[in-house]
Amino acid sequence: MSTVLNGIAASSGVAIAKAFVHEEPDYSIELTKVESSEDEIARLEKALAVSKQELSVIKDKTEKELGPDKAEIFAAHLLVLSDPELVDAVKDKIKNESCNAEFALDEIANMFISMFENMDNEYMRERAADIRDVTKRVLGHLLGLEIKPLSTIAEPTIIIAEDLTPSDTAQLNVNYVKGFATNIGGRTSHSAIMSRSLEIPAVVGTKEVTSKVKNGMTIIVDGIDGDVIIEPSEQELSVYEEKRNQFLQQKQEWAKLVSEATVTSDGASVELAANIGTPKDLEGVISNGAEGVGLYRTEFLYMGRNELPSEEEQYEAYKAVLSGMEGKPVVIRTLDIGGDKELPYLDLPKEMNPFLGFRAIRLCLEMTDMFRVQLRALLRASAYGNLKVMFPMIASLEELREAKKLMKEEEDKLISEGVEVSDSIEIGIMVEIPSTAVAAELFAKEVDFFSIGTNDLIQYTMAADRMNERVSYLYQPYHPAILRLVKNVIDAAHKEGKWVGMCGEMAGDEVAIPILLGLGLDEFSMSATSVLPARSQISHLSKDELSSFIEKVLQLGTAQEVEELVTQTYLK
Amino acid sequence: MSTVLNGIAASSGVAIAKAFVHEEPDYSIELTKVESSEDEIARLEKALAVSKQELSVIKDKTEKELGPDKAEIFAAHLLVLSDPELVDAVKDKIKNESCNAEFALDEIANMFISMFENMDNEYMRERAADIRDVTKRVLGHLLGLEIKPLSTIAEPTIIIAEDLTPSDTAQLNVNYVKGFATNIGGRTSHSAIMSRSLEIPAVVGTKEVTSKVKNGMTIIVDGIDGDVIIEPSEQELSVYEEKRNQFLQQKQEWAKLVSEATVTSDGASVELAANIGTPKDLEGVISNGAEGVGLYRTEFLYMGRNELPSEEEQYEAYKAVLSGMEGKPVVIRTLDIGGDKELPYLDLPKEMNPFLGFRAIRLCLEMTDMFRVQLRALLRASAYGNLKVMFPMIASLEELREAKKLMKEEEDKLISEGVEVSDSIEIGIMVEIPSTAVAAELFAKEVDFFSIGTNDLIQYTMAADRMNERVSYLYQPYHPAILRLVKNVIDAAHKEGKWVGMCGEMAGDEVAIPILLGLGLDEFSMSATSVLPARSQISHLSKDELSSFIEKVLQLGTAQEVEELVTQTYLK
Repeated sequence: MSTVLNGIAASSGVAIAKAFVHEEPDYSIELTKVESSEDEIARLEKALAVSKQELSVIKDKTEKELGPDKAEIFAAHLLVLSDPELVDAVKDKIKNESCNAEFALDEIANMFISMFENMDNEYMRERAADIRDVTKRVLGHLLGLEIKPLSTIAEPTIIIAEDLTPSDTAQLNVNYVKGFATNIGGRTSHSAIMSRSLEIPAVVGTKEVTSKVKNGMTIIVDGIDGDVIIEPSEQELSVYEEKRNQFLQQKQEWAKLVSEATVTSDGASVELAANIGTPKDLEGVISNGAEGVGLYRTEFLYMGRNELPSEEEQYEAYKAVLSGMEGKPVVIRTLDIGGDKELPYLDLPKEMNPFLGFRAIRLCLEMTDMFRVQLRALLRASAYGNLKVMFPMIASLEELREAKKLMKEEEDKLISEGVEVSDSIEIGIMVEIPSTAVAAELFAKEVDFFSIGTNDLIQYTMAADRMNERVSYLYQPYHPAILRLVKNVIDAAHKEGKWVGMCGEMAGDEVAIPILLGLGLDEFSMSATSVLPARSQISHLSKDELSSFIEKVLQLGTAQEVEELVTQTYLK
Repeated sequence: MSTVLNGIAASSGVAIAKAFVHEEPDYSIELTKVESSEDEIARLEKALAVSKQELSVIKDKTEKELGPDKAEIFAAHLLVLSDPELVDAVKDKIKNESCNAEFALDEIANMFISMFENMDNEYMRERAADIRDVTKRVLGHLLGLEIKPLSTIAEPTIIIAEDLTPSDTAQLNVNYVKGFATNIGGRTSHSAIMSRSLEIPAVVGTKEVTSKVKNGMTIIVDGIDGDVIIEPSEQELSVYEEKRNQFLQQKQEWAKLVSEATVTSDGASVELAANIGTPKDLEGVISNGAEGVGLYRTEFLYMGRNELPSEEEQYEAYKAVLSGMEGKPVVIRTLDIGGDKELPYLDLPKEMNPFLGFRAIRLCLEMTDMFRVQLRALLRASAYGNLKVMFPMIASLEELREAKKLMKEEEDKLISEGVEVSDSIEIGIMVEIPSTAVAAELFAKEVDFFSIGTNDLIQYTMAADRMNERVSYLYQPYHPAILRLVKNVIDAAHKEGKWVGMCGEMAGDEVAIPILLGLGLDEFSMSATSVLPARSQISHLSKDELSSFIEKVLQLGTAQEVEELVTQTYLK
């Protein structure tokens, strides 16, 4: 009899292979007194040096294979190992207590970990995870542990683990690792995000997969429905092989659409664009046939470093994306930092409600020196492609006017300096604050386009932090109020002859797509891997039919009723 | 030459009197070694006992004169003095280090204070202020300081201070204290709230009043415009005496309206109600001529204690308010706790964004045992007056239906037990979450009334925490989106024949009143002291004229333009 565990579907697809149980080595540590604390410090330094060396290799490999944003975490790990606050404290402890390096490191690291873990702030809690990951690496060297690295796997394998750390996932060889299943984690945990990047089927949060699986057992990971089948029967094997084949076939069907336009069954065109974080992501944008970049998040340029990026550095990044897209539209969002996304070197005050705080355009309109550098870099890069600049977190007309004024001033300066600047840059705003969605007709007169940022718009409209497990049920994309706001934004823009995109998660959601088409959305921007499925779905929908269907949808009272009606009508 | 300082107008009116500079005594402490730590602990215990005795007296006096919610802070102070974590730590320190009690108390208290101050949470930071206030009191006794208490003031006086603590304000004798001016504080600081309760003119946040004023100087406190005039000239004296007289005259004019109905110049009636926190507040409601209670916040019943209030206790409180209002409408809001308002005994998890968190109806629909107790108390009390029950933080129809279902179940149980329950209880909701304001027409079908909670509605609609100084400029009651939402809520309710109130600060604001009348608001609920000025203002406004004026207002693009147009048209 097989055992079936249910977890969270983290990355789509079906994998069937033998299990490799990734076990934690024994890190238990005893306190011993050492003769020479100098020798002990030398041992520590050696272990630190080896760890740094390993991390540099992992970082370079990750950067090459997955892009700089994915590699950033290892830069953070390297910073931990070079942090004098931590390293000196360990050395002092060895000196003062004549204790062994393992013990000193473990004690000091745990102190930092519990300090960071108790902070109210997501960013800081992630720092705790970094320190834990890095400390294990150094301890492994100090203890002389033989850790069988995941990189040595050389046959088709499904990895079973409590969780996978960034260091773990960076080592996976996708030629052999066919899937993975973990005890903990959610759809947005590190391991889940990595599995989607690597296109490896994965199920996370099974709670007990490590206790049920032994090395060498046959395992099916169903990343479509979130199931893990342990020691499947012959019949199950054939059912899931069929399911895997269907999935792969569908992927092939989708792949055929890569160079097609996005057209509904009754001939209406819309644009399917992709969201990116770094120029490196362009590869996925192009291979998935996106018709543009609907959201380039410029934050990554500013993160994981000790100072602001220079104008030149930014210019090069923006230029790379604009020229890489060869004239296709590229929407670049100006810096959205602050709130939960901190930049240590800006030294921003802690806030009680960071999501309702000093971030994005609010911060840029105050730190105008920093903002002007970004605007200049954007304006200079505009000569190389089809640039659309987008301001985030706009809540009032004053903010929009002020941002446009700063941009105009920098443009005039550049032109007077003889620098080439495109004369067809569009300027738009993220519609992610309820005030802007409600009063959209006022804003529509003063922008070239809107892009609806549903992640934040839903969160504010429902007054529910979607990261907070106790209220995340209120994060309802199909709530009647959200649909009314989206409609209001689209109608207001169209009345002024402007276009409307959407760059939140909702844009790539199969239930939302018929609704958004019916409401008249012009551009859908999503993760690159969603573009082809969305194009396929849209090709089977009639825009004309949806325009009347939407009237029925707007009569409904709850998100659940909306989801049911759309599912019954278009997804069966 | 006089000196004029500008600060924040905290409480209206003009006061002229001699200065009394309330100085901090010298609390500096030296470490000394003591012979007998037992004797030292006995000294500590004596100082604690005397302090508790004083605090009990202050607490009772405050409760009698200002009501239980104002007295609550002293209950919190008493809890600090009985907290074994603090007191035992001080005793241990005396024992272990043979140090003097002052030193031990100061060190331990500072440790707690800095711990609480560094927390991300407003509530916890207030605990730091409590500990500081209480510690000073005990230190004063240990050090044998001669502290001239404010209660000994026996001639007309204006108090000048760095800030006034709750212990300070509780001692003020309003027969002699004519006004006060402080260096620090804002409109919602403790001293500002107290000055309004006591109806003493006050200016806070002058930054430097203590360094400019000496005992006995003549001082004018202009709580209307926020000015403090030090050693005024003869001419200034007569100008401000005139201003004071005008203010008092206006107050008398207002007082004549106490038994009048609220009617516009063209004969339209609206209801002016008051917001209350405890039954004790009814006195102010009645003396200010409010026509009902538009918001009874039931949180205070749950706060400043160690366990949930019993059904009986709640029943008595609700009954007191309902019968005290003698059939006039009383809107009682069910428990709005969580977020920044914590109840230690519920042991709620810390949240990253408490304003977007697990609070109010969200919490009540999960902790249904607690919620049912409140509903039963409300239902039983309904027999004694005109009860309207209001659910806070409703974001979806499901929540409203679930809350109504629980209420119906408790009603049925009570009726089957033979308990008398009114058959005309209205059920309404706070409209304070954007989703509910946007989709108001869906909710209007399933409620008896709406009450717009502007404090939260504005905060969520603008995605700006109004307590956060860096973004509080975005807390804009006149933002075009807010006006559109208010209009949408009123129109939706009227279409279904339901009434709409407003219980946020906006309802009592003189700029907002013409707008709200024009939009058709039925009930305005405000602090009791604002009722008469509002009634006076409304009596000079024509509803008919405002209905067309509002069309012009709704064309405007920014909050500033709205404020200017209303001010020019109606407030000059």
